[in-house]
Amino acid sequence: MTSYADSGVNIDASNTVEEKIGRIVRKTFNKNVLLGVGSFSGAVSAKQLKSMKEPVIFVTIDGAGTKTKIAAMVGKWSGIGMDVVNHCSNDLLCSCAKPFFFVDYLASSKLDPEVVEQIVSGMSFACKELDCPLVGGETAEMQGVYIEGETDVVGCMVGVGEKKQVFDPKKVKKGDMLVGLASSGLHTNGYSLARKVLLEKFSLNDKPSSLGKSLGEELLVPHKSYSKNVFKLMRKVKISGIAHITGGGLIENVPRILPENRSFAIQDGAWSVPHVFRLIQETGSISDYEMFRTFNMGVGLVLAVKKNEAKKAIGELEKLGQKAFVVGEVL
Amino acid sequence: MTSYADSGVNIDASNTVEEKIGRIVRKTFNKNVLLGVGSFSGAVSAKQLKSMKEPVIFVTIDGAGTKTKIAAMVGKWSGIGMDVVNHCSNDLLCSCAKPFFFVDYLASSKLDPEVVEQIVSGMSFACKELDCPLVGGETAEMQGVYIEGETDVVGCMVGVGEKKQVFDPKKVKKGDMLVGLASSGLHTNGYSLARKVLLEKFSLNDKPSSLGKSLGEELLVPHKSYSKNVFKLMRKVKISGIAHITGGGLIENVPRILPENRSFAIQDGAWSVPHVFRLIQETGSISDYEMFRTFNMGVGLVLAVKKNEAKKAIGELEKLGQKAFVVGEVL
Repeated sequence: MTSYADSGVNIDASNTVEEKIGRIVRKTFNKNVLLGVGSFSGAVSAKQLKSMKEPVIFVTIDGAGTKTKIAAMVGKWSGIGMDVVNHCSNDLLCSCAKPFFFVDYLASSKLDPEVVEQIVSGMSFACKELDCPLVGGETAEMQGVYIEGETDVVGCMVGVGEKKQVFDPKKVKKGDMLVGLASSGLHTNGYSLARKVLLEKFSLNDKPSSLGKSLGEELLVPHKSYSKNVFKLMRKVKISGIAHITGGGLIENVPRILPENRSFAIQDGAWSVPHVFRLIQETGSISDYEMFRTFNMGVGLVLAVKKNEAKKAIGELEKLGQKAFVVGEVL
Repeated sequence: MTSYADSGVNIDASNTVEEKIGRIVRKTFNKNVLLGVGSFSGAVSAKQLKSMKEPVIFVTIDGAGTKTKIAAMVGKWSGIGMDVVNHCSNDLLCSCAKPFFFVDYLASSKLDPEVVEQIVSGMSFACKELDCPLVGGETAEMQGVYIEGETDVVGCMVGVGEKKQVFDPKKVKKGDMLVGLASSGLHTNGYSLARKVLLEKFSLNDKPSSLGKSLGEELLVPHKSYSKNVFKLMRKVKISGIAHITGGGLIENVPRILPENRSFAIQDGAWSVPHVFRLIQETGSISDYEMFRTFNMGVGLVLAVKKNEAKKAIGELEKLGQKAFVVGEVL
């Protein structure tokens, strides 16, 4: 007799995990949620869209990348949950869309209930901060697909915005200033390279003097969400474009918000690149170009604003506790 | 000098793959799509929701599970793309929601452009059939997380429905008939067990006489979407509940559409269980209970209808080319 448990998929254990998940995610529910976990799909009232002029629904799907390998090594997963939610919220922000709801996908060769709980707790915390209910998810045990002990963490966020407010690259003009918002660290990009370079020389417990904390702690700092602060800023400053600095760095992401015939210049020394990036660059003898095309280099989000609004934007962001600086301008 | 390519993530190759994906998925676009691939998020007009009474947005996220291991062994991936889309559409159908848009996530230790193209082609084909634009996606290369040559395939589908039309378990009554819709094979569930049992005795090229095709072909038959046919049926027959028979089989999925105090009986011999399930059961000496809790056993979807409507429902489905039969009743 072969039972499903013998083949590596334990339905009973997975049911228990799902119950625990249910209790945690219900804390994220707001008045829009109609059904919850346990149905064939999540359901959210779209009543608010009826009073909008031209409602647009936005969607983004993102994974935590190989940052999960650091989490697996250190044994701390809640930040990874926050990473995926916050990453998604920033992608939506680039279209001027507010988070509406979120679903997740967690897969491993064998799910560790403790790991799942930590991830979902982190997601729920970040979702709650954004008033973005976590309305469903899928967990999968795939022996022979995932390397033992590794987990992939994926999230999909749906957002809502008015069509007229969607940023249009045509509205970004020559001379506009590019205001950078400080990142909290590597966010979720460049981990394959960072691991390769750093873990050849250091262990995650090491405390390189420039960092002031262990390498493991530094590499697990959660991806920051800029959504709430930037929506507050929009009430005071007109923004013509927003770029989320993810894979491809400033070099590949800033052009995504520019008109086709425009380029941009980064102002040398305009901000101080955080120590962790310097540590990676020096340890791996990596060129500036490769660094700026791989890592956010301390800039998690870039706003395009009129030249005479840059100072005000920075001031307002600093008031909200968000470090900001001019990183360059549109050419 | 360490470049990103050395660390196993090739941004240039991934850009090319994304361009190819772009061309394929654009074929799925309908009038609702506002932006396309390449933006920070996908965007879909929600204008149609303004004319609805109480619009509800539904969301489901699903993976293809270890069916991907069969695809990797045979080297055929397009069916896996169809699997994920169709699986999602059936989950939405259980809430009486029509597909609105879809996004995907593909991850591997190293993405094979040919595999990605096949998967996305399969997804696009299935999306086009459902008039459900594929508006975005994420590809991730995660060395050290995925076993070499393996790929995880995940999809998230958003649907729309009227609140009043969402099925309510309270409306399923004692005596209602459970009409089963024939599955096309294993769909996407039970592959860990099926592989364990079958691949100990057979190779994927073997043609066990009962199947009439190779084991590989049988195990890669795509998951069926019932969405279009069942929405057509709803114009003629009142349905009080729909269960998608996925992981957990009839035993765990039918109760999800029943009121708390009700159970159900499966009519012994009401349909002929397809040969592939018999082959798995006999080869692995698996109990009936375990089989019915793991596999769909030939029933991909179950509708609850009034007793006197069952025959009509079956007749209408047969007219649409969908084999259907009474599988049991509500107790």
